[in-house]
Amino acid sequence: MKSKGSRTERELFHMFWDSGLAALRCAGSGSTPMPCPDLLVGDGSRVLAIECKSGKKGRRYISKEQIKELKEFATKFGAEPWVGIRYDNLDWFFLDIEDLEKSKGGNYSVSLGLINRKGLSFNELISK
Amino acid sequence: MKSKGSRTERELFHMFWDSGLAALRCAGSGSTPMPCPDLLVGDGSRVLAIECKSGKKGRRYISKEQIKELKEFATKFGAEPWVGIRYDNLDWFFLDIEDLEKSKGGNYSVSLGLINRKGLSFNELISK
Repeated sequence: MKSKGSRTERELFHMFWDSGLAALRCAGSGSTPMPCPDLLVGDGSRVLAIECKSGKKGRRYISKEQIKELKEFATKFGAEPWVGIRYDNLDWFFLDIEDLEKSKGGNYSVSLGLINRKGLSFNELISK
Repeated sequence: MKSKGSRTERELFHMFWDSGLAALRCAGSGSTPMPCPDLLVGDGSRVLAIECKSGKKGRRYISKEQIKELKEFATKFGAEPWVGIRYDNLDWFFLDIEDLEKSKGGNYSVSLGLINRKGLSFNELISK
């Protein structure tokens, strides 16, 4: 699923540029010893650190380590930590990490129901 | 020289983390259609976009396109554009892009003399 993840991540990367924000993809995301979000986006006043998930509809899990690293990076850098989710055949939605559902063992998860209740659309995210 | 460039860039990346700033290396720097600095660094209030150069002492050239892209990215993202230079057997020095020397054809260059006059050390850069 690595290639599909990369494809949807590139799609989101271009959506930001097309909307006038500067985005960059982090080299070695998931493979360096230092925390690093999938995308970092700036608009001159805000910085968004985004961890991206994509795939079939259903509950998707995010490890507590990933969320911990996202928080750490965001706090140190001065960015807002977000999780972006792109279910197949749906648009991108974005969740504040405080709104993620807690799962077994301290891990986190996202579901369609959660997105419906708490998710922001792309336009809502960038005009917040 | 790609591998040496990567090695010195990683060295600088770790210097920022060791000093309590969050740094990330841009994926596909130099190979994506979108502008992308070698390193992006944040400390909670400032964001630094850094183009890195390294190698033997002497005049080093930077194309006008690279500087144009660095400026564009920095303006859009809300970052300060810097050129970092690491001559063999010397420490890192940093130049404001406004201080670069103009070269033939609108390109830019860096020299040891320029670094002596205008360069900031790593500690000067991060405590500005």
